[in-house]
Amino acid sequence: MRQAFHSISIPTRGKGLYEFTQDIRDWIARERFSDGLLSLFCRHTSASLLISENADPDVRADLAAYFERIAPEDGPYVHDAEGPDDMPAHIRAALTQTHLSIPVQNGALLLGTWQGVYLFEHRRAPHTREVAAHFIGE
Amino acid sequence: MRQAFHSISIPTRGKGLYEFTQDIRDWIARERFSDGLLSLFCRHTSASLLISENADPDVRADLAAYFERIAPEDGPYVHDAEGPDDMPAHIRAALTQTHLSIPVQNGALLLGTWQGVYLFEHRRAPHTREVAAHFIGE
Amino acid sequence: MRQAFHSISIPTRGKGLYEFTQDIRDWIARERFSDGLLSLFCRHTSASLLISENADPDVRADLAAYFERIAPEDGPYVHDAEGPDDMPAHIRAALTQTHLSIPVQNGALLLGTWQGVYLFEHRRAPHTREVAAHFIGE
Repeated sequence: MRQAFHSISIPTRGKGLYEFTQDIRDWIARERFSDGLLSLFCRHTSASLLISENADPDVRADLAAYFERIAPEDGPYVHDAEGPDDMPAHIRAALTQTHLSIPVQNGALLLGTWQGVYLFEHRRAPHTREVAAHFIGE
Repeated sequence: MRQAFHSISIPTRGKGLYEFTQDIRDWIARERFSDGLLSLFCRHTSASLLISENADPDVRADLAAYFERIAPEDGPYVHDAEGPDDMPAHIRAALTQTHLSIPVQNGALLLGTWQGVYLFEHRRAPHTREVAAHFIGE
Repeated sequence: MRQAFHSISIPTRGKGLYEFTQDIRDWIARERFSDGLLSLFCRHTSASLLISENADPDVRADLAAYFERIAPEDGPYVHDAEGPDDMPAHIRAALTQTHLSIPVQNGALLLGTWQGVYLFEHRRAPHTREVAAHFIGE
């Protein structure tokens, strides 16, 4: 049994879903992981993680539009020192995931056929987001 | 230290919460797991996982009704090629969990007294949902 | 490779976010964990876990107010035997997290600069909440 750490940097260009499934697969291949548990941790409170459909891009557009409606920028927020998109960003992060674990078997992530792993950026300005990855297994 | 994998198949008959706590307990008993971390991963983007109260069935009915209100079938979605229940299904999955881990100690899941583990089906049609289970420990 | 369990008790005095990052750091220091995966599991269905900003207290106030609006006490719920704050508590727990895992590297939690770990109490009355902690690694 062994473990390993990796840091994945994801450049973002405004609000939206950025897939990084391939970055994870590349790390698995490079390290020759066979079986274990792969964990991802988003080190930010205004971006988050989401597993979603990676076939029809309309799904991502609808998801983004939904979170705009459910946590709008013009909500009755007290916290506004960092701009109107900051407090809704914290809310959207709270409603989605900061952490995800995915089993790895025979060298493959056990994702379903249509599942992709996404960084969900909630801020308007470009950022470089960091996801800490951890693997434990063989 | 050892690890093991298991696939749990859950037949669904339309939207709602389907408890599968006993399937997990059966696997723990069969494999004689004593202490470790048990992870569950839902391999779908229109169904999800939820830990909720397993005492009063009204709680499940209220939860299902709440998600109908918050992500209705007649929302302003672009993606509708797979039916009016598909895009709300992706939204409800995003708002709940694709993955859960539960510690196991002395052969028992460390669930609270009233907690059950549920597959949350978001589609109208019957499906067979697959949850990948992984255990690491002793 | 080793593992360890710990139970963290968190007294609450009504709805709100209660940070317990330091309790986790104390456990890591006491047990001299160096590298591994630390998992937290909330053993309740009317309280939950959340990683959020720990700088400006307005963020927590806005988060709490948001969940009051999105899952109000006077919603059309069937389940009301345990008081008007019980069913919204289950909904708010469903929308946030029951479980979180955080990688630990060189003895430190891999949290971002502004991230804190919170118990999100959803009931009005004081409670003692129990979070089961599990570590696997070295």
